[in-house]
Amino acid sequence: MIKTDILIIGAGPTGLFTVFEAGLLKLKCHLIDALPQPGGQCSEIYPKKPIFDIPAYPEILAGDLTDKLMEQIKQFEPGFTLGERADTIEKQEDGNFIVTTNKGTKHQAPVVAIAGGLGSFEPRKPPIPNIANFEDKGVEYMIREPELYRNKDVVIAGGGDSALDWSIFLTDVAKSVTLIHRRNEFRGHLDSVDQVQKLKNEGKINLITPAEVKGVVGENHIEGVVVAQKDKEEFTLACDHFIPLFGLSPKLGPIADWGLEIEKNAIKVNNALDYQTNIPGIYAIGDVNTYPGKLKLILCGFHEATLMCQSAFQRIFPDKKYVMKYTTVGGVTGFDGTKKEAPKAVVKKIE
Amino acid sequence: MIKTDILIIGAGPTGLFTVFEAGLLKLKCHLIDALPQPGGQCSEIYPKKPIFDIPAYPEILAGDLTDKLMEQIKQFEPGFTLGERADTIEKQEDGNFIVTTNKGTKHQAPVVAIAGGLGSFEPRKPPIPNIANFEDKGVEYMIREPELYRNKDVVIAGGGDSALDWSIFLTDVAKSVTLIHRRNEFRGHLDSVDQVQKLKNEGKINLITPAEVKGVVGENHIEGVVVAQKDKEEFTLACDHFIPLFGLSPKLGPIADWGLEIEKNAIKVNNALDYQTNIPGIYAIGDVNTYPGKLKLILCGFHEATLMCQSAFQRIFPDKKYVMKYTTVGGVTGFDGTKKEAPKAVVKKIE
Repeated sequence: MIKTDILIIGAGPTGLFTVFEAGLLKLKCHLIDALPQPGGQCSEIYPKKPIFDIPAYPEILAGDLTDKLMEQIKQFEPGFTLGERADTIEKQEDGNFIVTTNKGTKHQAPVVAIAGGLGSFEPRKPPIPNIANFEDKGVEYMIREPELYRNKDVVIAGGGDSALDWSIFLTDVAKSVTLIHRRNEFRGHLDSVDQVQKLKNEGKINLITPAEVKGVVGENHIEGVVVAQKDKEEFTLACDHFIPLFGLSPKLGPIADWGLEIEKNAIKVNNALDYQTNIPGIYAIGDVNTYPGKLKLILCGFHEATLMCQSAFQRIFPDKKYVMKYTTVGGVTGFDGTKKEAPKAVVKKIE
Repeated sequence: MIKTDILIIGAGPTGLFTVFEAGLLKLKCHLIDALPQPGGQCSEIYPKKPIFDIPAYPEILAGDLTDKLMEQIKQFEPGFTLGERADTIEKQEDGNFIVTTNKGTKHQAPVVAIAGGLGSFEPRKPPIPNIANFEDKGVEYMIREPELYRNKDVVIAGGGDSALDWSIFLTDVAKSVTLIHRRNEFRGHLDSVDQVQKLKNEGKINLITPAEVKGVVGENHIEGVVVAQKDKEEFTLACDHFIPLFGLSPKLGPIADWGLEIEKNAIKVNNALDYQTNIPGIYAIGDVNTYPGKLKLILCGFHEATLMCQSAFQRIFPDKKYVMKYTTVGGVTGFDGTKKEAPKAVVKKIE
């Protein structure tokens, strides 16, 4: 059982910044995310795209935003349960919540902050009848651990950035990389498309287009894919892994069944006070919540996280009075023993 | 008469970021600030101090925060009335507000956003009976335009960072710089204290300590200051300018008389919706406002500014429906003809 002060569901920008604001209040955080790394959409969907409306960043790449937030919260040593989806919640008699993931990991905390964005990202799966039998047996819809593919024969399907970028990346890891797409044209960054062309010319990527994977074969583990290529007879291509990268689509998912008030596929919160939901002790911050005038912007999530942490503090320590200190004045003392602070003024004689 | 869409009172971080969010909605902004430059406290009081709680900035100097915001809003060409304090407001029959400064400059806008921080910064004045007669006649409490002091004999009084830093700066501009302080010890950045010591040793700063300025003399313009130095007889020191830098203290000031609901020296707003005050069309954002759970943090001001701009848009264009577009998707089109946008994905054949 993982125990913490604030259990944060969703490790996107809002979830990450919550760790910082909680840390200033000496509250510890643990984050759960269905994606294999922190950063939410910013890391998984558009890491190389610029964002222009983060205050005081005229431009920042989404991936860099994640890196900066990870650096900012490092002092507060957050815990992470990644690649697992928060599935169930139950309230204990002592007031603590227990949140269990789809893989059975259990977490306990007096406060739960749902920072789930548009929901947990679920892969779009190809319409192959028996594919479910091979999930985690050689069929993966997301790449969680590139080392899994070392010296393996890998087939990737898809025509977008993920398919292009992972094909490029895995040429250095896998024994062979085959990229299958139903058109000859790919859609992505010019650099990525050109790089795949180059690797194909060098024989490092085996390109099969226009073609589709129609089936998967194997006993306990995948052993091959059945490929239908235009103007050719269907054939079976031996492989150790098949990775269909057809995009991710967010689903509110199991959270929708937690008894929270839902409106427009988002969780209603009390924006007049602390972004708490209808269940005391459960807050919803960032894109996952809704209230009159709500804007689904990262900068709004930062504010909501900040006010929420104050309320969480009062909930956890009803008898303590917290007096806010500006970081410029009081510095930032990490749980790891480090302290950041402004250089002190000196009092010195001039003679 | 200066005309604009949103008249922002206060050019601190919240006021500056308002220009960006308004700009995305194609609304023009003009800012009024009593200080001689944008940035509010960040620029005037602690430009060299680090802030640790701006989201995604593990550390940023307050002065750099101002610079980044100015860069971010540049595309939207904000207007500025600096060094003037917003004094009176009147609502016209057509719904527009007219705001007049202490120097008589008039501004007209359908929406007023008060982003006044802790208030307008008023200098602490030394207890010299006739000093008011010499204000703007050689006595200045803030340095607005350093060129005013070119080839002049300048006396600065004070023992903190402002006195130290301006003494250093003006050695390159003024004919002579005299620094007077009631103690031998100065309080400030070590670098600044050491630099003043060096300039004093080189004869570029004339240091008189421990001493106080007891009087100012002159006819229409200041001609000298009366100095009381320990263990010496009072003497008169000829000068063209006397600049007492004893710190600034914020005062809500004339805004307190605008008919707004005030609580704890701050303006009450509707935080459940759009940060509007009790007077429709006047909003209050950032440290100047108050509501249940309010935190006086820069990051909260950014959020408040953003929601406020949406409401202002509806007020100015009641018949238009605004559909929010993410900057990553839609880019940012400036009023200056520039456009920032994410590189477009290509669709390209690989063969």
